[in-house]
Amino acid sequence: MTGKRPRPGEFELIARYLAPLAAGTPGAFDLKDDAAVVDLPGGRQLVVTVDAMVAGVHFLPDDPPAGIGAKLLAVNLSDLAAMGAEPFGYVLTTAWPEDTDEDWIAAFVGGLRESQDRYGLHLLGGDTVGTPGPLSLSLTALGTIEQGRALTRGGARPGDRVFVSGTVGDGVLGLQALRGELAGEAKGHVDALARRYRQPEPRLALGRALLGIASAACDVSDGLFADLGHICETSGVAATVEAAKVPLSEAARAVTADDPERRECAIAGGDDYELVFTAAPDRTGEVRAAAGRAGVAVTEIGAIETADGRPRVVAIAADGRRQDTGQRGWQHF
Amino acid sequence: MTGKRPRPGEFELIARYLAPLAAGTPGAFDLKDDAAVVDLPGGRQLVVTVDAMVAGVHFLPDDPPAGIGAKLLAVNLSDLAAMGAEPFGYVLTTAWPEDTDEDWIAAFVGGLRESQDRYGLHLLGGDTVGTPGPLSLSLTALGTIEQGRALTRGGARPGDRVFVSGTVGDGVLGLQALRGELAGEAKGHVDALARRYRQPEPRLALGRALLGIASAACDVSDGLFADLGHICETSGVAATVEAAKVPLSEAARAVTADDPERRECAIAGGDDYELVFTAAPDRTGEVRAAAGRAGVAVTEIGAIETADGRPRVVAIAADGRRQDTGQRGWQHF
Repeated sequence: MTGKRPRPGEFELIARYLAPLAAGTPGAFDLKDDAAVVDLPGGRQLVVTVDAMVAGVHFLPDDPPAGIGAKLLAVNLSDLAAMGAEPFGYVLTTAWPEDTDEDWIAAFVGGLRESQDRYGLHLLGGDTVGTPGPLSLSLTALGTIEQGRALTRGGARPGDRVFVSGTVGDGVLGLQALRGELAGEAKGHVDALARRYRQPEPRLALGRALLGIASAACDVSDGLFADLGHICETSGVAATVEAAKVPLSEAARAVTADDPERRECAIAGGDDYELVFTAAPDRTGEVRAAAGRAGVAVTEIGAIETADGRPRVVAIAADGRRQDTGQRGWQHF
Repeated sequence: MTGKRPRPGEFELIARYLAPLAAGTPGAFDLKDDAAVVDLPGGRQLVVTVDAMVAGVHFLPDDPPAGIGAKLLAVNLSDLAAMGAEPFGYVLTTAWPEDTDEDWIAAFVGGLRESQDRYGLHLLGGDTVGTPGPLSLSLTALGTIEQGRALTRGGARPGDRVFVSGTVGDGVLGLQALRGELAGEAKGHVDALARRYRQPEPRLALGRALLGIASAACDVSDGLFADLGHICETSGVAATVEAAKVPLSEAARAVTADDPERRECAIAGGDDYELVFTAAPDRTGEVRAAAGRAGVAVTEIGAIETADGRPRVVAIAADGRRQDTGQRGWQHF
């Protein structure tokens, strides 16, 4: 084992760790200039999003640093996926405590590297500062989309069907797994859930495939009901979700089999980074074809209704009982 | 006097304070969507920059919050100014301690509002999180520029003249003023310096006016010598600066009249947000005309030389003594 390395100064930290991430994008000027310049093909629109993560709030202090880097990028790309945008780069702010171990930084940057290579992106710039507080990260992701085609939260109409990609609930169950709260469950399931929490998969291909088909979309970060609620609020509609239709992974089904409350908590939990979206009923065939092209499972889970006086999102249990899911989002630990 | 108000939750904080900053930009979707979409006129390039500020590191805990908001935007716009870009919007990450006073937030946002109105910008999106540490801010500013015209740090050539806008040294002297280290100096001077530290003026009009004229440019954030050093490093050249020609404000001249060491420290200090730039000797007339159009004073302070083995930036004193200014940047308090 090597000893801890004190963290390098900011200039050194940029040159050693961050500048290599910008290599290959001439307009990032090796992070040596004041800003980045990016060509945009004619007729396209810029899409920009930002997400922050703070140690002890958004990730566990002993989470593997590579996973934190990868997740920071993934949650931003998930926002771009929800609009159907194609990412092309990102800028990064890091505020480092004085006692940060350089090996930690190296592993964190390694995770970013793996993730940016996977999605064909480059770091375009950033700011690197010290802080007397916890490690704080902020990433701004940039993408483009064809003029006027972005999926938004505002297009859902009564009669539309509600869909969700992949499986829901693995995020919160994965966090429980990492906290040791799933002791006694099969190791394979516990590991699968933890991996899902640490390595979300932004649904970029699905977002692209849904352009012109979905009427509204959002990524599942606050929680399935909360994010569908965001669509309802912006679109001025209400929604029902048939709880039994919400797709769960094999691991999630296994660890919630004897615990309906854990199952409900998992479904509402968040941090899944799937897409929840709506489409007119006569377009469900196109939705299925888009899901096939993107290689992602998509499940129809509910319907959009008129708003007048109704709670925004109602969950319908297997016995027909209707429950207002409220607007409770995923409260980070 | 009203009592302290506990800080609102994140959703409420966005709706109450941040969403109004995005009004008027349809593509920001009132901050309710996953990302912002921005039209770019054909043939232009995107320019993006980010700067972070941490309480106790980049600003004083008792600094007026409106000034902190205004300064956060201004320092980013200064980066865009150094490239000659036209800003069009920004995204903002704020990490708030639990005990933040809402009146503080309101005043901070008021400062941002005044600043964005002044420069015709809108907030495009952001992330708002809690933190157990100090208040941490990160702002990503976005601008555009005509294809291929951006001023960069890489274009300085031996024989070029070195210029700086406005006056240098007010930033660090303003910080000293705010720390009470200029007791005994005239109140008018002390106040003028403090104002300059708190309210930097990004040289956007000058940056635009210098397009096609300056060979390289950088904003003076790390310090005049350090930032000119960045130009030298990227351009592969060296520079000399005649110290006596570096322009000081009336206030800076007054408070450093009997203290040459304070004067040297002020000149090298940073946080001035002026532009330091180079231009071929036969373009000095055009530089003066550009400065006139932008309404900003510009002073010729030195020259670019070949690099071979020379220190990057040499200051020449009035008595001809040459001093390597090293690469020491402005170390924040």
